[in-house]
Amino acid sequence: MNETRSRRWFLGVLSAAIAACKTKSPSAPAEPKMLGAAVSPYGSRSRFEKAARHVNTNTRVPLEEASSRTPLHDTYGIITPSSLHFERHHAGVPEIDPATHTLTIHGLVDRPLVLTVDELKRLPSVSRIHFLECSGNSGGEWRGGSAESDVQRIHGLTSCSEWTGVPISTLLRECAVQPNATWMLAEGADACKLARSIPMKKAMDDAMVVYAQNGEPLRPEQGYPIRLFLPGWEGNANVKWLRRIKVMDQPAMTREETSKYTDLMADGTARQFTFDMEPKSIITRPSGGDTLAGPGHYELTGIAWSGRGTIARVEITTDGGASWTPAALQTPILPRAHTRFSWSWKWDGRDAMLASRCTDDTGYTQPPLPDLIKVRGTNSQYHNNGIQVWKVASDGKITNGNRA
Amino acid sequence: MNETRSRRWFLGVLSAAIAACKTKSPSAPAEPKMLGAAVSPYGSRSRFEKAARHVNTNTRVPLEEASSRTPLHDTYGIITPSSLHFERHHAGVPEIDPATHTLTIHGLVDRPLVLTVDELKRLPSVSRIHFLECSGNSGGEWRGGSAESDVQRIHGLTSCSEWTGVPISTLLRECAVQPNATWMLAEGADACKLARSIPMKKAMDDAMVVYAQNGEPLRPEQGYPIRLFLPGWEGNANVKWLRRIKVMDQPAMTREETSKYTDLMADGTARQFTFDMEPKSIITRPSGGDTLAGPGHYELTGIAWSGRGTIARVEITTDGGASWTPAALQTPILPRAHTRFSWSWKWDGRDAMLASRCTDDTGYTQPPLPDLIKVRGTNSQYHNNGIQVWKVASDGKITNGNRA
Repeated sequence: MNETRSRRWFLGVLSAAIAACKTKSPSAPAEPKMLGAAVSPYGSRSRFEKAARHVNTNTRVPLEEASSRTPLHDTYGIITPSSLHFERHHAGVPEIDPATHTLTIHGLVDRPLVLTVDELKRLPSVSRIHFLECSGNSGGEWRGGSAESDVQRIHGLTSCSEWTGVPISTLLRECAVQPNATWMLAEGADACKLARSIPMKKAMDDAMVVYAQNGEPLRPEQGYPIRLFLPGWEGNANVKWLRRIKVMDQPAMTREETSKYTDLMADGTARQFTFDMEPKSIITRPSGGDTLAGPGHYELTGIAWSGRGTIARVEITTDGGASWTPAALQTPILPRAHTRFSWSWKWDGRDAMLASRCTDDTGYTQPPLPDLIKVRGTNSQYHNNGIQVWKVASDGKITNGNRA
Repeated sequence: MNETRSRRWFLGVLSAAIAACKTKSPSAPAEPKMLGAAVSPYGSRSRFEKAARHVNTNTRVPLEEASSRTPLHDTYGIITPSSLHFERHHAGVPEIDPATHTLTIHGLVDRPLVLTVDELKRLPSVSRIHFLECSGNSGGEWRGGSAESDVQRIHGLTSCSEWTGVPISTLLRECAVQPNATWMLAEGADACKLARSIPMKKAMDDAMVVYAQNGEPLRPEQGYPIRLFLPGWEGNANVKWLRRIKVMDQPAMTREETSKYTDLMADGTARQFTFDMEPKSIITRPSGGDTLAGPGHYELTGIAWSGRGTIARVEITTDGGASWTPAALQTPILPRAHTRFSWSWKWDGRDAMLASRCTDDTGYTQPPLPDLIKVRGTNSQYHNNGIQVWKVASDGKITNGNRA
């Protein structure tokens, strides 16, 4: 930021701070004068901090089958704190003892395998920073969403972590997969035995059996002690509490890929096995529910990601898409990871329609929501990556601009 | 990993898993058959996981003035979980209310400034993944260390996080620093008012006032609500609970840069203002305290970092430095951040002297400890970046090979 812009910022945003210095000598408030707390084995956050996952209790399903959403508005950078990673369970969070849990690989293989968690951890591992997004994220926007909603409730089913585990290709090569193998079934150890069919091509490309997240063992709600991880693919296919991989010559046609997690089109047909999470971006601050203090300079920030590759460009509009200007991308810009962007805005105090759109390195640009609806209709719950518009009223109130 | 190597691994490491499949059909143990736990606002780790910071209770100073060390042996990837980030306090962890805390900037400036935490958070921010290392890390090795010690106790005063905050250059430009300013004093709000002098050049280059760590607000033991962050510089200069910056035309010569945190040489002189943390690497698994099960294939892993730039190369020796071969570096490889490396080792069952050494993009190569001692003597407690040797005995036991 150059000096001129910096100065403008302070004049616009921080007039109170400057005024404080004009009227009195700089002085700090009373500060601790006694020894504070001791060092400790495992830390926790300040009692002053309250950011939380949003749990929708207004639901017909029990909370064991519900979801909780990341407070995107209250998180920073690209790493989501593990305690705030979104959840979506189909039979609650099982408690699994890692000393007895095993992963079985069988089916069209010459050498079936049963691995303990300890054995898995002794194999060569990789760590990768990747987002994970539920395909149902932003699903309410297909049908106009809620005017009262905010970025957490609309888009909070995406998070980003550093994941550590063993490439599945390592395991499958050991098992000697037979030539006619084209799919594998991945099954979880939760009570519903959630299961998804995964093409062998993805398995051999970059799929992992993951046992750590953000430097420590996977959290229980993320599949402790082990989960499947498929970089860039919809959340539910990344089977948690992974217990079994069966190598097959066709998909298993489980419940989660027939009645659920297919995309019902306007003509009554359904898209099936739509694994890729397509390029998407959102302005997270300011966003729905915020009120701007008044005309002046504001720093916009948000996240962009693509299940198909790396974010190449994010652009911002304040006039509902008539004109776009580039946002700054913050390094590191990693494939299939949240990428943080920022943009400085001088608000003139009039109605505005704020939005971001991203383009990934395949050349795909995030579409306006009406264009997406033209192609996909409004029957689906899944794979909504349309541009999110935030409506700014002249009184500073920000609401969901996706409403017609 | 190619197929041949994968197969060799399994034969060497996982013979039990393969045997299991030969003697019985693959079958998983009893798994949950009932709904698990519900979604929750803020998650925590599994009760089966016990990794902890090491707190040395055998000390004459109270635990408020002590340190706790990251379990490097039990962490993964490059991000250190915030709950396991090392600590070093001089007056304990103060509890500070972010609603009343302020940062004052004064001294040789035309426009002094008092900023609240909220005001700071409204300014343009950056997020960066950087290590933080105490200059006293590995300090015991100057005098031979302990034969019983392990990687956590020897080297656990380094951690790596994503830090979010405001560049200090933004703040100082607003204050209009006077032409004769060459240093700034940074002072914490803890009871001892820990203070360090920082050259203006570093402040204007990449220093930040940080308010978030790994996606959420800074942890109390890391300086909540705000701390100074100086990428690549020794930990104590990154003043926690930051309350005041005074711009000056000379260093303040505080206690922490005169009687402490200087490096006493053999001739009785002292190195002062030795801020850079020089290139360093450690094999973290296997390491001191581990016992290898027997001859065969082992995956070695560890971390390397440089306060001066980016890790360019890590090499491994198994013969105490007579020969070196390159390790694999895992992406992302970021400047002034931990970089994860790995290397496959076929242990023949005989005595071995295992070690890693790194080279950064300035061309500096981590020195053997005896070479470092020749130059710096053994009087200092600080800035020991000598090569860590792990001694492997024929019974598989691994001990500190730095012992004469």
